[in-house]
Amino acid sequence: MIRVGIVGYGYWGPNLARAVAETDTAVLEAISDYSAAARERAFRRHPSARLIADWKDLVTDPRVDAVMIATPVATHFEIAMAALKAGKHVLVEKPMAETVTKAALLVDEAQARNRVLMVDHTFIYTGAVQTIHGLIADGRLGDIYYYDSTRVNLGLFQRDVNVIWDLAVHDFAIMDYLFAARPVAVSASAAGFLPESPENMAHLSVYFDDGALAHLNVNWLAPVKVRQTLIGGSKRMVIYDDMQTSEKVKVYDRGVAFTDDPREAYERMISYRVGEMWAPALSSKEALVSEVQEFVRCIEANVTPYNDGESGLRVVELLAAASHSTRLRGQPVEIGELKRAS
Amino acid sequence: MIRVGIVGYGYWGPNLARAVAETDTAVLEAISDYSAAARERAFRRHPSARLIADWKDLVTDPRVDAVMIATPVATHFEIAMAALKAGKHVLVEKPMAETVTKAALLVDEAQARNRVLMVDHTFIYTGAVQTIHGLIADGRLGDIYYYDSTRVNLGLFQRDVNVIWDLAVHDFAIMDYLFAARPVAVSASAAGFLPESPENMAHLSVYFDDGALAHLNVNWLAPVKVRQTLIGGSKRMVIYDDMQTSEKVKVYDRGVAFTDDPREAYERMISYRVGEMWAPALSSKEALVSEVQEFVRCIEANVTPYNDGESGLRVVELLAAASHSTRLRGQPVEIGELKRAS
Amino acid sequence: MIRVGIVGYGYWGPNLARAVAETDTAVLEAISDYSAAARERAFRRHPSARLIADWKDLVTDPRVDAVMIATPVATHFEIAMAALKAGKHVLVEKPMAETVTKAALLVDEAQARNRVLMVDHTFIYTGAVQTIHGLIADGRLGDIYYYDSTRVNLGLFQRDVNVIWDLAVHDFAIMDYLFAARPVAVSASAAGFLPESPENMAHLSVYFDDGALAHLNVNWLAPVKVRQTLIGGSKRMVIYDDMQTSEKVKVYDRGVAFTDDPREAYERMISYRVGEMWAPALSSKEALVSEVQEFVRCIEANVTPYNDGESGLRVVELLAAASHSTRLRGQPVEIGELKRAS
Amino acid sequence: MIRVGIVGYGYWGPNLARAVAETDTAVLEAISDYSAAARERAFRRHPSARLIADWKDLVTDPRVDAVMIATPVATHFEIAMAALKAGKHVLVEKPMAETVTKAALLVDEAQARNRVLMVDHTFIYTGAVQTIHGLIADGRLGDIYYYDSTRVNLGLFQRDVNVIWDLAVHDFAIMDYLFAARPVAVSASAAGFLPESPENMAHLSVYFDDGALAHLNVNWLAPVKVRQTLIGGSKRMVIYDDMQTSEKVKVYDRGVAFTDDPREAYERMISYRVGEMWAPALSSKEALVSEVQEFVRCIEANVTPYNDGESGLRVVELLAAASHSTRLRGQPVEIGELKRAS
Repeated sequence: MIRVGIVGYGYWGPNLARAVAETDTAVLEAISDYSAAARERAFRRHPSARLIADWKDLVTDPRVDAVMIATPVATHFEIAMAALKAGKHVLVEKPMAETVTKAALLVDEAQARNRVLMVDHTFIYTGAVQTIHGLIADGRLGDIYYYDSTRVNLGLFQRDVNVIWDLAVHDFAIMDYLFAARPVAVSASAAGFLPESPENMAHLSVYFDDGALAHLNVNWLAPVKVRQTLIGGSKRMVIYDDMQTSEKVKVYDRGVAFTDDPREAYERMISYRVGEMWAPALSSKEALVSEVQEFVRCIEANVTPYNDGESGLRVVELLAAASHSTRLRGQPVEIGELKRAS
Repeated sequence: MIRVGIVGYGYWGPNLARAVAETDTAVLEAISDYSAAARERAFRRHPSARLIADWKDLVTDPRVDAVMIATPVATHFEIAMAALKAGKHVLVEKPMAETVTKAALLVDEAQARNRVLMVDHTFIYTGAVQTIHGLIADGRLGDIYYYDSTRVNLGLFQRDVNVIWDLAVHDFAIMDYLFAARPVAVSASAAGFLPESPENMAHLSVYFDDGALAHLNVNWLAPVKVRQTLIGGSKRMVIYDDMQTSEKVKVYDRGVAFTDDPREAYERMISYRVGEMWAPALSSKEALVSEVQEFVRCIEANVTPYNDGESGLRVVELLAAASHSTRLRGQPVEIGELKRAS
Repeated sequence: MIRVGIVGYGYWGPNLARAVAETDTAVLEAISDYSAAARERAFRRHPSARLIADWKDLVTDPRVDAVMIATPVATHFEIAMAALKAGKHVLVEKPMAETVTKAALLVDEAQARNRVLMVDHTFIYTGAVQTIHGLIADGRLGDIYYYDSTRVNLGLFQRDVNVIWDLAVHDFAIMDYLFAARPVAVSASAAGFLPESPENMAHLSVYFDDGALAHLNVNWLAPVKVRQTLIGGSKRMVIYDDMQTSEKVKVYDRGVAFTDDPREAYERMISYRVGEMWAPALSSKEALVSEVQEFVRCIEANVTPYNDGESGLRVVELLAAASHSTRLRGQPVEIGELKRAS
Repeated sequence: MIRVGIVGYGYWGPNLARAVAETDTAVLEAISDYSAAARERAFRRHPSARLIADWKDLVTDPRVDAVMIATPVATHFEIAMAALKAGKHVLVEKPMAETVTKAALLVDEAQARNRVLMVDHTFIYTGAVQTIHGLIADGRLGDIYYYDSTRVNLGLFQRDVNVIWDLAVHDFAIMDYLFAARPVAVSASAAGFLPESPENMAHLSVYFDDGALAHLNVNWLAPVKVRQTLIGGSKRMVIYDDMQTSEKVKVYDRGVAFTDDPREAYERMISYRVGEMWAPALSSKEALVSEVQEFVRCIEANVTPYNDGESGLRVVELLAAASHSTRLRGQPVEIGELKRAS
């Protein structure tokens, strides 16, 4: 039985607490938050968990085996590092840290101490993304041509991060999980329409080492909420629409192909394939619960989860490269460039 | 009564011919096409129009007052120039020409001869775009923040132009009509997934002189057809979805604003406005017929249409700049740069 | 080569004429309409067809092999009977006649003279209905439980027929084609909200001899156009939405079943199956053209089409029974009752 | 401060408990359920409420002012009557009772003891229904022609009630609130496709005293969930789609009207009005919380809520009449008939 401590009981912490409570192999040992009101809320829902004001007391508590961190991004590094140094396993909210350097230090620390370091890329545990992953792994989509995502809504304007770190992070994590190809460069342009606020709208292009192209459209100032991703493959194409209550994933047997037409020797013809559509049944298990269970399993079996620190680091590299590109008015920034510099 | 000659009776020519036939103030005098089969088709639908094989005979025909050109892009310049030199008024398909220089020469020629030169930006005559134009002109959207368009479908792969010249041209023409602000730079990235074919997928960013930002997503290799544009304004936002059979234009009374909250002196708060949605009734008059009528009216009244040669030239400048940017891996290209160079 | 004459060139006649023109095995010989304006329109599109004012001259014309009738319902019987008596094959618009007696007389006449009598149930030739037919015939839906159709829109208010004869006729024809079971009774309630106009809204229930139940909701006074049918089977269920541009037919692997649960010996449990959805690729061939080709094929091969006079008669029986039920405030009317009475 | 006791902590009881907890003017005093597991769940969420096994102890508890009943329908009467006789105010789940007689007895008892008796018609407190109520009250829809509701989904098959008592009850409650007109008769047909289970599919027609017509389509065996209601008025029409996350209510400025056309003296013409659509902003306050607050307000102010016992009784009358009609194969049953008989 893994004893879990949660740091931060604001927006996301309660979800983590509930997921731990629903996991047979874990017990919710302690919750820390500087806010007395937050601790009061935590007590009403989890009366058996100890409430702690200062996270430093939680991460060093000998009755805690694993620490989950749901605090503002800027604090992730300090808390996670302290927990790792205290010998705890760590699940940290995404993005893992606000710089590549800090993310890399966490990876090194976890490795040195042989601790599980997981980044909360919740989406990869959804039935939808799991199913798409299977389709790609089975070769049913063929070669991946593109990933095209629209992730827009009205608000919430964040104060500490811009729309890239808030929304594009989801797509970076999903692509990191789905694709074998690795990003080589990112180009991004962003705009902020409210003075003294972080950028609220951005368009990002990600170039992969196999020629695939990803594009992300993120926006806090849209009239409606859209969560739609098109994935184009040489054999089939997918629409993943997270706003649908059913049929979130649709697989289209459509595409183009060359045909050699003997009548026109000097040119190659394009034929269109407009076949059936298929919406697979998706697992309805809650993603966060699956993720917490996987975290516990990795601790107990001493294995590495997919969304480990390396994965979190790769996502931070993309975020940092995208931010850098926005300051260059969209000039592509190569992945690895920032890492080497730091 | 304006006597019209149509050059090219392939895909679009029949639509022009029908629109002329439905216009009381014009008569369909002649149709030219090198293909005998095309002329046969034209005869069956328009038995009273004279059929001509060589367009050169049509553009110099004294019984023709105005020439409409529906041929491949690469031929627009030669035919339009010959028609203008023969003293004809000209309606030419978009894009007006394949280079900025050629487009500018047509503008000069039309001006020198005091002829009407119109570019067939059909969309600006739709009830939807007319209505959005009215909303912007009335100030009901407030300041324009962004224009975000998705224009994707499966095929048709073009042979002579890439997806930018085929699809983005529509958005350039619509923005040219809707916005008072002028583009200052374009950034574009494109990819082609079929060898020896033009690029079939592109993402374009257009930077305006008032800070507004446009983004276009065009793709010939998508599983479904999408024609959706979001327009964000400081007061209201619009979704224009051309695939809807009704309610193509939805106006959302939504947005964000700063509020000065006396309780927190040192920070400015953001408030969200989630008000009603309104779908205005749109004119159902066919856009192409409205456009042909406007063409005839401008000839008769000796006035200039909105979508004149200058407008067509501005659109070609954007197309050329976007194409140039794709060759620079998305580096922004300033508008005017190419013009001055040529 | 079958020589076709068309009676009536108003709303639907031009579609028939065009479909004949697209059929290699038929030639459009003549068109009749009392209106000179209609004949003028016909001439412009079909200059080689002879134009005739009086349909009596067309149906007896020796150069005509087959007559297609697209006139108001009240005239179908007289024209079709005259054509059959003159030895012509007949394709008549639905509903075939305005009474069961008249429909039965046409069936008898066609049989006595060994002529093809087809009723224009166009929908059964669509790719969508053809596909659903195949799914049912293959047993993939299992036993049919219900057919539930919503067919509403704003207008057109008809003058000569009410909404049942105008819209429910489509569902009656589709069900006649899809289902092996036969209707035994119909219950219908109707309302008219405009004085001195036919009923514009109706709800109909059809009881089948195998226990299946159909329900039709038809309305000329709805704010939006809906064309949606749910078909529930013991194995799978279908949604047929004719307003979709793609994915008109969706097949759901969903349902309920009893499970014998050993833990609860005294009760049988219900389990739910929520499986995948599948949208088969549909033929995009125009239904009317397929139907005209089938009409010609049946004439040439001396065979009977599915939508023959018997099928048309069955549909008229349902319409008459439904109308009768509305006058009884929804009391069920047995099929065959009216027939025997007449 | 009203002290509330809740009877039944199964599916709906926890929602009532949470709503009470969110109401400043009420306190959750006690919860009763025969199931120890249910009481354990209740304790974890509401540790300060007393847990009681037998409802009889709760309804007579002097520390309880008001009783909320969330138990199976068949038990409503006994529990509510006991609570009223003990002088408690009562909020009872819908349907209020399983017979008209029992419902009427509860109304009489509440009146005799001057207690508030409310039936939990939650939907009438939603922002959507409140807004439609306002549109009708303001005369913006004009005369009401029809109410047409589709309320279908897959499962849950109920054991104790059929689909009419489970789903149509919502529409009966909504119509009771929206319309000034009163139902005069109900016709219903139902079918059950699973042996030994209650009917799972039904179609109901409700005839109103002003000529309006309602139709309800309810079904537990549909492939997808639909919650859609069309309301047709002489001036405007409404679509209320509860499955939409935004724009649940759309108001269409559409309809038909007679026009006197001088050119055709002997007939009256119909004109169509296809105007704008408008989706009002809806209150997002949770309906159940609003309802509980209204319950408390009525107790404190000694006033009668809209959804009082009389309203609950009217709904039960409709349910009973519909059930009766299904046994008569859809023959209309007059409202009041059953009441007088009982």
